Amino acid sequence: MIPDEPTHAVVRTAVPGPASEALRARHGRYQDARTVHVYQDARKSRGNYLVDVDGNVLLDVYTHIACVPLGYNHPDLLKSWHDGRFDWAAGFRPALGVAPPPEYVDLVEHTLMRIAPAGMSHVVTVTTGTEAVENALKAAFIAFMRRRRGGAPPTPEDLAACLLNRQAGTAALKVVSFEGGFHGRTLGSLSATRSKPVHKLDFPAFDWPVVPFPASRFPLDAHADTNREAEARSLEAVEAALRAGDVAALIVEPIQGEGGDRHASADFFRALRRLTSEHGCAFIVDEVQTGGGATGRWWAHEAWGLAEPPDLVTFSKKMQIGGYYCREVFHPAEPYRIFNTFLGDPLRTAQLGVVVEVVERDGLLDRVQRSGARLLAGLHGLTARHPEVFSAPRGVGTFAAIDVCDASTRDRVLFAARQIGLEAGGSGDRSIRFRPALVLADRHVDECLDLLERAAVSLP
Amino acid sequence: MIPDEPTHAVVRTAVPGPASEALRARHGRYQDARTVHVYQDARKSRGNYLVDVDGNVLLDVYTHIACVPLGYNHPDLLKSWHDGRFDWAAGFRPALGVAPPPEYVDLVEHTLMRIAPAGMSHVVTVTTGTEAVENALKAAFIAFMRRRRGGAPPTPEDLAACLLNRQAGTAALKVVSFEGGFHGRTLGSLSATRSKPVHKLDFPAFDWPVVPFPASRFPLDAHADTNREAEARSLEAVEAALRAGDVAALIVEPIQGEGGDRHASADFFRALRRLTSEHGCAFIVDEVQTGGGATGRWWAHEAWGLAEPPDLVTFSKKMQIGGYYCREVFHPAEPYRIFNTFLGDPLRTAQLGVVVEVVERDGLLDRVQRSGARLLAGLHGLTARHPEVFSAPRGVGTFAAIDVCDASTRDRVLFAARQIGLEAGGSGDRSIRFRPALVLADRHVDECLDLLERAAVSLP
Repeated sequence: MIPDEPTHAVVRTAVPGPASEALRARHGRYQDARTVHVYQDARKSRGNYLVDVDGNVLLDVYTHIACVPLGYNHPDLLKSWHDGRFDWAAGFRPALGVAPPPEYVDLVEHTLMRIAPAGMSHVVTVTTGTEAVENALKAAFIAFMRRRRGGAPPTPEDLAACLLNRQAGTAALKVVSFEGGFHGRTLGSLSATRSKPVHKLDFPAFDWPVVPFPASRFPLDAHADTNREAEARSLEAVEAALRAGDVAALIVEPIQGEGGDRHASADFFRALRRLTSEHGCAFIVDEVQTGGGATGRWWAHEAWGLAEPPDLVTFSKKMQIGGYYCREVFHPAEPYRIFNTFLGDPLRTAQLGVVVEVVERDGLLDRVQRSGARLLAGLHGLTARHPEVFSAPRGVGTFAAIDVCDASTRDRVLFAARQIGLEAGGSGDRSIRFRPALVLADRHVDECLDLLERAAVSLP
Repeated sequence: MIPDEPTHAVVRTAVPGPASEALRARHGRYQDARTVHVYQDARKSRGNYLVDVDGNVLLDVYTHIACVPLGYNHPDLLKSWHDGRFDWAAGFRPALGVAPPPEYVDLVEHTLMRIAPAGMSHVVTVTTGTEAVENALKAAFIAFMRRRRGGAPPTPEDLAACLLNRQAGTAALKVVSFEGGFHGRTLGSLSATRSKPVHKLDFPAFDWPVVPFPASRFPLDAHADTNREAEARSLEAVEAALRAGDVAALIVEPIQGEGGDRHASADFFRALRRLTSEHGCAFIVDEVQTGGGATGRWWAHEAWGLAEPPDLVTFSKKMQIGGYYCREVFHPAEPYRIFNTFLGDPLRTAQLGVVVEVVERDGLLDRVQRSGARLLAGLHGLTARHPEVFSAPRGVGTFAAIDVCDASTRDRVLFAARQIGLEAGGSGDRSIRFRPALVLADRHVDECLDLLERAAVSLP
């Protein structure tokens, strides 16, 4: 499918190698380069294979923290680039709320709304996942306060007080989120993030409630009774938090992407939808990491069979820009309430236009389901053969993970895998996460499983 | 300088015209299109002239809220695009903290650090202005808490409490900002924003103190004594806020860009630097709107003659990406404290590389100073001829403004100006702001002044 994709991983040096380390030394003088895995040869990378500056060819099932929908340098993306399809976006970066080009309106209508989740009437574009969440929260606050005022305009006291950060009633508004949830790193979204102290230490945060996420056992079906009890306990905590009042929104990921690939049942999410409706609280489904096709559907929540759609659905990563979809009632009555200078980026949105076409033309969502089934079966095999190392294989589509016996072994497996050509990532305390591109085929799945197994058995 | 730039504005229809309104009707089904001035023909726009979809040619001194450094479709930007200079950034959007390409390291070193303000050792790249401010605030909180702990690691209690949004001592941390200041619209930066209720109504905010910005009279020199008193009162309030303790940062714009183009003297800003140093509080200069050359220097604060540099300097808009520069001590000791998925956008940064080259090659900062002087002289003339309409002309470089007698007249002048071919913007309650590209030449200044005067005298 991708003509000049490498046939397999090839490792020539330690990973990262000397050329990467030389760049890190230069880079580290000006930016934090400690987090860099390798420096990437962007031109040579192809399909599912990341080529680094030392000439190592890595099978990449992490893809820049789940951001590369079509793999590297997909021919349709490059052809569109060279054929001039993006030229209208080449000559300046616009403020899309002030003077957007008509091509952007086409992209909103034919790309963003084409793949909109059912029930969503509007789409707000911003630039990143954290901005997506911040603005979805703002839309929820606006709707909540409009309802509380019964449609009346704000009082002069409200208008004066808000400039002093002391608007009556507003300070008490809350957002409920889940233990292990990750929703971004700016101070609003970060107040809903509950994954790791490194994200939150030393920063002021809103005094919002946190509720337990069900500690499901895998496979979900095989432990349905136990999981149902865990979910019931979580739902009780949710209901108690909503009953306390002043809750403008509840935000949840379909699968906790940073917090350890924790899953829950469709029943659980349907119950969240019912509870938030009953309590007049916005139900925000954060699909920044799950959205864009990795679960074998455009949106992971489409698998839940909701009777009533979510109120807001956030996205970023594979979507190339950030933003959220929402229902009509969450579209503010007044202009400039949800606004910023750039409101996204037309160039990245135009690239998304190509992505959506290719996904549909090539049936990539079906492919993700097939590759995901093969990956999950393979992870089960790995677990059966190495129960002392691996456990709890789980996944929806290719959005998959496996646990390792402890955090240090997990880190050593990831390091060893990279040395033989597999770029994967960690999630939570001791999970390995798989976030491949949508062009992952059977042969990549098999190679990934083989490399992972070899890495695990190579540990001293 | 820009070969095929129009020679003057040409208006064929009402502005916005029927083609813009038809697009607004389509666009408004999915997004908030009420804020759109006109829909822009991105390909036909050239230099200082915005061409809209009705074929109107507008002299643009607003430039997408100050975001277009070289005007529209500058030949060097287009040539770089077509010559393949950006091709390495064409095939995917990377997570720059995970696997950056070496071209990005070059851009950091040769573009971003080349124009770094004196005293700044590091640069953090993000995507927008509000993310720039959020992360600068986080760097300030980290430094403050590190000092407070005396270098000791956080306690297990701190680590547990931060996940509950209840870390002892941290909730009380504050950021001081100024009345009329604008620093962004996500919940952290928005807590420092104090410009208008439309930005803040209904949103929870941190209980941070606000201090008065000096109500300077213009020209600053002619009212030095009065202004000095206003500045002294403001500084007293600042000192009282800092004395109250727990202040991690003070944030200020060199010129209040949304809040009405309010200026203060270099003495005032030098005093802010001294006070923040004395009280161990980070001094954040927010150059999102002033940075990137509009004041005739890369950074407006360079005009202050500071004895000690700022601690952090934020940018976005003309810089094409968001971010901040900082001093060594504000670079976190641990990795992943300041981090997100995209950490900017290499494509927009590569375009900034061309912008910086052109600004230097063509001496655009000098040109901005000359054009700015001509603009300011012209605004003084306008004020002298129409004192019943205009007052308080002011500006540094081409970052200029003029007051109109009242808000409604200001809005009518802007509307009338657009009908005859001038795209300008409002700021504060009753100011008109000028935020042209750096390629504004004498003839554009003269045309701008002529159109503005014709608009003003045309009012019934």
